[in-house]
Amino acid sequence: MITGKNYVGYNLMGTGTTKFRTFSPLLNKFNSWDFIEATDSEVNLAVDKAWDAFKQYRKRTPAERAMFLELIATEIELLGDKLIEVYMLESGLPESRAIAERTRTLLQLRSFAAYLEENDSMFFIHPKSTELLSKKLIPLGPVVVFGASNFPLAYSTAGGDTVSALAAGCPVIVKSHPMHAGTGELVAAAVIKAALSAGMPDGVFSNLNCGDHRVGIQLVQHNSIKAVGFTGSLKGGRALFDIANRRPEPIPVFAEMGSTNPIVISEKTLNKKSAYWAEKIVESMIQSAGQFCTSPGLILAVDSADLTAFSEFLTEKLENKNNELMLGQVIKDSFSEQKAMMLAQKTTSVLSDKFTNNTLDSEPTILMTSGESFINNKLLHEEVFGSFLIIVKCKNQLELEKIVENLDGQLTGTLLVDELEMENYSRLIESFQYRVGRLIFNGVPTGVEVSQQMNHGGPYPASTDSRFTAVGTDSIFRWLRPVCYQNWIGELFL
Amino acid sequence: MITGKNYVGYNLMGTGTTKFRTFSPLLNKFNSWDFIEATDSEVNLAVDKAWDAFKQYRKRTPAERAMFLELIATEIELLGDKLIEVYMLESGLPESRAIAERTRTLLQLRSFAAYLEENDSMFFIHPKSTELLSKKLIPLGPVVVFGASNFPLAYSTAGGDTVSALAAGCPVIVKSHPMHAGTGELVAAAVIKAALSAGMPDGVFSNLNCGDHRVGIQLVQHNSIKAVGFTGSLKGGRALFDIANRRPEPIPVFAEMGSTNPIVISEKTLNKKSAYWAEKIVESMIQSAGQFCTSPGLILAVDSADLTAFSEFLTEKLENKNNELMLGQVIKDSFSEQKAMMLAQKTTSVLSDKFTNNTLDSEPTILMTSGESFINNKLLHEEVFGSFLIIVKCKNQLELEKIVENLDGQLTGTLLVDELEMENYSRLIESFQYRVGRLIFNGVPTGVEVSQQMNHGGPYPASTDSRFTAVGTDSIFRWLRPVCYQNWIGELFL
Repeated sequence: MITGKNYVGYNLMGTGTTKFRTFSPLLNKFNSWDFIEATDSEVNLAVDKAWDAFKQYRKRTPAERAMFLELIATEIELLGDKLIEVYMLESGLPESRAIAERTRTLLQLRSFAAYLEENDSMFFIHPKSTELLSKKLIPLGPVVVFGASNFPLAYSTAGGDTVSALAAGCPVIVKSHPMHAGTGELVAAAVIKAALSAGMPDGVFSNLNCGDHRVGIQLVQHNSIKAVGFTGSLKGGRALFDIANRRPEPIPVFAEMGSTNPIVISEKTLNKKSAYWAEKIVESMIQSAGQFCTSPGLILAVDSADLTAFSEFLTEKLENKNNELMLGQVIKDSFSEQKAMMLAQKTTSVLSDKFTNNTLDSEPTILMTSGESFINNKLLHEEVFGSFLIIVKCKNQLELEKIVENLDGQLTGTLLVDELEMENYSRLIESFQYRVGRLIFNGVPTGVEVSQQMNHGGPYPASTDSRFTAVGTDSIFRWLRPVCYQNWIGELFL
Repeated sequence: MITGKNYVGYNLMGTGTTKFRTFSPLLNKFNSWDFIEATDSEVNLAVDKAWDAFKQYRKRTPAERAMFLELIATEIELLGDKLIEVYMLESGLPESRAIAERTRTLLQLRSFAAYLEENDSMFFIHPKSTELLSKKLIPLGPVVVFGASNFPLAYSTAGGDTVSALAAGCPVIVKSHPMHAGTGELVAAAVIKAALSAGMPDGVFSNLNCGDHRVGIQLVQHNSIKAVGFTGSLKGGRALFDIANRRPEPIPVFAEMGSTNPIVISEKTLNKKSAYWAEKIVESMIQSAGQFCTSPGLILAVDSADLTAFSEFLTEKLENKNNELMLGQVIKDSFSEQKAMMLAQKTTSVLSDKFTNNTLDSEPTILMTSGESFINNKLLHEEVFGSFLIIVKCKNQLELEKIVENLDGQLTGTLLVDELEMENYSRLIESFQYRVGRLIFNGVPTGVEVSQQMNHGGPYPASTDSRFTAVGTDSIFRWLRPVCYQNWIGELFL
């Protein structure tokens, strides 16, 4: 069932000679399938097909696109246990997570389908109030989507970027993530089946394999690619952003990147609900070995005996949990390196470090530092992707507010606060919202609801363009642009 | 009344020593005012003030911002004839144009004010459909606006970019255009007066002078600047775009740049309405010496005896018009250089070249070339800013369609067509819309209505981000981003 080849539109191709394999964290060995990297000419062929497909696909009605998305969901369901099995083999994530992520992926497909069906007039904006002018949204053109290491389903092959681009009327070329190329191929096969039965043009979807950056760079530089969707590291997202902006014709790159997802904890919360929130935060930080872009990495609070007690609760709760496995060696190495950098900072002290000798172990870690050290050391602001948390003890509310005001851009910011304290926190809240894409009250940052109200993005470096969301139906606007029609003769028929 | 100094927030400052003057095309001499370039520290002070002002200004209600915009309009009106006088001295444009542009500028201010008053809930998007989530639009931060050479009022100091940014809640620093720094200072004084009477924070608006690129580059590179608005050349817009994207924290640049604004003329139109449209197009191309970003520069039609007759009409109509003066020597030199480049192409023939020995004369020119030459020579696709038109004779409808499909991105595309022919042109129209920001039927591209339905922008190189408009109330979305609030306690009070 897994061929290791590339879907260049409807054609399964593997003329290349460079191969790679995916790795099973649980079995601690390489999986058996050989994936064949797409050749330069296969990449160009996929783009040419996408460009030709664009001229057809953009004319399909919202209802036709909705049906296509629904068929994709059905085909993914039909993959059944095989998909879950391969997902687990390639990620080491537990079955419950695999099933939950599949559910989410299906939900995304179906919610976009419903959105298109219910809003088939959404592409016509500002129904004409003058005789002369009307405005419509049209798709940008072929979109390249980069599969995310940490979401083999929901942010990869038929994940959020792909679905929103297809909904917009843009053909999609997926650069499959090499850590879960098998999962990717299974899903790609489902998309291809759906495209065929929906009568979509050849090239509306392609799925290309590559173990390094070559294929991705070639795609982003190609003149017929008109936008890019990416979920991953700051380094990767910024590199693609730079490549896209240096093109003769620059194109939009929506990269959803790093975040430390700060949690501010109020005095009353520390006093009254310390144990409760310690448990919640530990659960949030260790979930999927902390490999979520919304995993909490920073706690900010004013120093007090309650904060000390809370820190002890955190440590205690964490010690009671089992470590998980990280997704792969590259990610673990990056975690270890970043963690070592943090530990090397003289002003940090270790509260908990569940170091083991297991290669892929998540090794959750909690450090503590002072507000002053945090302000003076920008290294402490960096994201450590994984289960890693720094508690910042601020000397007073003013210092806490200063830190919040000067945070890097974040996907999320969380405030654990009592209703009675809201007045005291109004200044902090006001400035907090300007540093984040989502402001959460009395919750944890992990768990991103798929809905129109969601915003998943934020000021740089959380994303490359804070004006758009990566999750929820509004994410379609990344791939659409307005056209104004002046003095149109008769009915708009396009 | 004109001091030549910079408005650094509320302070009129001129500590620098470098000075420049504006030039009067009509009098053919420099105007008498000395403009003092802003120093590095004045630039930094303006940005620091804008950042401080941002923290206050963003909290002002839409109604308060609307009142501010209305006061700006009133203060500009109070400048009276003096403004028109200085405008004419610095641009050489006729009084009628000066008055029309002032009217447009006032309309923009007042339509944004009305928009904010009528849509004070616009910042709250997708009223919550779940208990947990709601979403609001918030301003990005201080915006730098570059004055445009060809619109001393409507796209400069208090023009479209400034008004939309102020409406969004962003403080504005204007880099005044050195060709009309006096007009700029008068308008800036009006904005400052309005800000003072509306009780706006110091730094909500600044106006800085500079004869070259220094101040502009310093502003765009400054960490506290969060977005850029620009109207001008491809070279200038691209340079700012590149600077902004190379920052540690990249920021959005909306640059509205060049365009040849192609006009496709149908067989029936050429046959029946040749003289009528020849007159209209000539009027459109010579208006304000062709110094509009929507000035028509390209005519596409299938070769026929009617096309030859039409070309003769065009030439005849053009010969009957008086040449106008261009805005300044830099613009004229650029026109002459680009025009010479076009004339040097072996495949073009000159239909009309109203060359004179007057330094600033607009020298309208019409060339003709074949579809094949146009396809094979990308130089012929370039914009010549000024009164310059190329007629492309296509050998058949298929070649015409091929040219349209492969056009560079354009602000506008126009189709002069008979209703009975629409069926034959449906394929062309479908692909034409993908190359333009605005598709016009039986009209001319000049004249950009200020309304919600307008789209002024388009695929690169028409603009740096086709997803936004520079004109009309939707232009506010360039400066806003969403924030999601999850599990908010009580009423949203921010």
